[in-house]
Amino acid sequence: MKTSNEALMLPKTDIALNVHQLRQILQLSHALDEVGNPAQTVHRMARALEEIIPCMKCYVWLHDPDTQLLWTYADERLHSHKADEILAGRAFLEKQRLHLSHPPEEALIHPTFDRLHAAELGHFLAQPIHKADGTVIGIMQLMNSRVHPFSASVLDVLSEWALLAGARLHNILRLKQWQQAFATFSETISRILDTRDYITSGHSRRVTLYAMELSRQMNLSPAQKKVLRLAALLHDIGKLGIPELILLQKRRPNEDEYEIMRRHVNITRQVLQGVHFPEEIKEVVDIAAMHHEKFDGSGYPLGKKGDQIPLGARILAVCDTFDALSSRRPYAERQPFAHIVNLMDKETGAAFEPFIIYHFKNLPLGNLIRILEHGHEDHINIGDVRFLNQFTINDYMQAHREPDDNNRALTERFDYYYSRGYRV
Amino acid sequence: MKTSNEALMLPKTDIALNVHQLRQILQLSHALDEVGNPAQTVHRMARALEEIIPCMKCYVWLHDPDTQLLWTYADERLHSHKADEILAGRAFLEKQRLHLSHPPEEALIHPTFDRLHAAELGHFLAQPIHKADGTVIGIMQLMNSRVHPFSASVLDVLSEWALLAGARLHNILRLKQWQQAFATFSETISRILDTRDYITSGHSRRVTLYAMELSRQMNLSPAQKKVLRLAALLHDIGKLGIPELILLQKRRPNEDEYEIMRRHVNITRQVLQGVHFPEEIKEVVDIAAMHHEKFDGSGYPLGKKGDQIPLGARILAVCDTFDALSSRRPYAERQPFAHIVNLMDKETGAAFEPFIIYHFKNLPLGNLIRILEHGHEDHINIGDVRFLNQFTINDYMQAHREPDDNNRALTERFDYYYSRGYRV
Repeated sequence: MKTSNEALMLPKTDIALNVHQLRQILQLSHALDEVGNPAQTVHRMARALEEIIPCMKCYVWLHDPDTQLLWTYADERLHSHKADEILAGRAFLEKQRLHLSHPPEEALIHPTFDRLHAAELGHFLAQPIHKADGTVIGIMQLMNSRVHPFSASVLDVLSEWALLAGARLHNILRLKQWQQAFATFSETISRILDTRDYITSGHSRRVTLYAMELSRQMNLSPAQKKVLRLAALLHDIGKLGIPELILLQKRRPNEDEYEIMRRHVNITRQVLQGVHFPEEIKEVVDIAAMHHEKFDGSGYPLGKKGDQIPLGARILAVCDTFDALSSRRPYAERQPFAHIVNLMDKETGAAFEPFIIYHFKNLPLGNLIRILEHGHEDHINIGDVRFLNQFTINDYMQAHREPDDNNRALTERFDYYYSRGYRV
Repeated sequence: MKTSNEALMLPKTDIALNVHQLRQILQLSHALDEVGNPAQTVHRMARALEEIIPCMKCYVWLHDPDTQLLWTYADERLHSHKADEILAGRAFLEKQRLHLSHPPEEALIHPTFDRLHAAELGHFLAQPIHKADGTVIGIMQLMNSRVHPFSASVLDVLSEWALLAGARLHNILRLKQWQQAFATFSETISRILDTRDYITSGHSRRVTLYAMELSRQMNLSPAQKKVLRLAALLHDIGKLGIPELILLQKRRPNEDEYEIMRRHVNITRQVLQGVHFPEEIKEVVDIAAMHHEKFDGSGYPLGKKGDQIPLGARILAVCDTFDALSSRRPYAERQPFAHIVNLMDKETGAAFEPFIIYHFKNLPLGNLIRILEHGHEDHINIGDVRFLNQFTINDYMQAHREPDDNNRALTERFDYYYSRGYRV
């Protein structure tokens, strides 16, 4: 039952570490407990080092194999540098610890990262972070003032910690990579959908943008936004099962053809049920497959109503309908904007949840026109966007009902972009 | 620059832990250094506990939210149980440590997992493993004989370790979930491709199965197989960009139409380049987009040859061609098997790498017929598969060239399945 240490191949833990050092390592380990994204993780890790080691300033740099740059997250933003642009990069390139005591000014490479803010730099330490196989994946950079040298004890703690943290960081980076892979795969499939169906060209993309705009307005959590975004990208994946002959004709579909197109929602569910979604985004299936349900229960395919429909699907219903009504078709021009908003008003409480329409009508017009004209952004004046962003859909409707010299600028500016013609 | 411990919100490390305990925790941490799959991880973790704590037998159980079962990996296989089927499950349900000293036989629930092999159970300990937010995700189960009680020191170490390991395991489980999500998404898209194009119905699936059969034969590494499998599933994703009018006609395509179909390889590359593949599967793009390159440089779109073509793409070329030649078409019956093998022989050294064809011709006929008849497995006699698996494609060709009473059974049995008719 027992196996020898050799068989398990655990790395030898330095038995010379004392209780204080071991406790420091354990505390540092807890800084990586909370599974977050890599940026949050390096930030948390740097702060734990500042506190537990302690040191005056710490940065944790990770190497990005795509760009070959070292990056860190500090002062609430990402910073990327080539290895030879920062002093810590030397430890990365040479794959060994760099420890400088009272380095002269000319030894420092970077104007901010290699220097201590408002304190004279006395001690600079860069410790490579490596995976179990020895590959260096990043650097811990610690700086102290002239009066706080790094002890031999601290160096030992950092060597031990570098190995533990390396394994952990590598895993967090891989998780992020796979999440990105899934998200970009979804975007790619969405783009294929948008290209294949030239009549509704760009539909999935615009619905996704409307959904993100609304979820900002409604203050959804990052987790809710992530799920909604994926569901929006994939809500029409079932259309891959509809023959092009029906999908791409230039006249309005007849009732039979509508019936076939309606089936796409069921196919969307079937298709997405084949995907083994991670716990945290499982709701994508229901949201995507229920975007034709209506708030009052008169939708399809299930006839669910109110809270039985996930919030994301209730939001998608609004975005999907608005895009269908407002996009250019080969067989019809855009309907007037006010007419569409009136149609949506009429469906409020029926197809749509009033609370969502309330937020929808508070969307800023500049952002709205940018989504309506997605793909033609080059031809939108940024000053016009800023001007229009001072107003909402509600303001437009008010101005439309009671036009006067003040508000005519708003409707005219919006309508200019809304009504200009493009070949499909 | 400094922040208080409260601000960082690190969990309080029990300062009462002594140097021996801390060292044990650190050693246990290293057992999770190597990033592997969850099954390997729980196995490694259990062995580290047996060695470092030490105890006579340990299992690490994890909770699967999909099935609601507790599972572990032991004796080289997975075991799943409801929480009430094993004693450790009690600790999971009650979310607290279960420590039994000299439990009577009737307290033990499971015939094997709750018992010590060849030693009388004296001490049973089940320690919940939890994430930073307190959610219990699994159980560490430790058992000792009557002569080795668990000390208070061991209990302290396990509490501390449960928290550290919990964060780590949660991350490993999430990684696995996202990898599965990506794999099942690829399978789903592949299935859509196979359904959409009824003329080559099931093509991507069969090519994937041939590729896996060949990679077993060629002894590729698990990592190589994983990449090849994804590339095989997605190698025709570019066909989503080909109009159905051309894709689905019932006659042979003309030269112009072939030209359009040939473009699918370029579209495959464009599409897959939009996906941000993780480091470990980056080669999927090249393999999928180069399956029409030929070994002698006469293929398309790049005209690469030999080693300039990734091994996976050289394998896919063989599988893709074999499936194209051997599948039923609306406009043609299956060509005789020997004829197809002769065609492939003729292209060996030209389209195909000889080394791969060597392995291809060593494929067992039973597995081959199962792939050829994929979708009709119900109508294949398992005895016939076993019989045919004693022979390879080489044997078939030999028997075909020089038929005698001994080898006629082999060709006839194979041809029966190969030539039977199905409506497309």
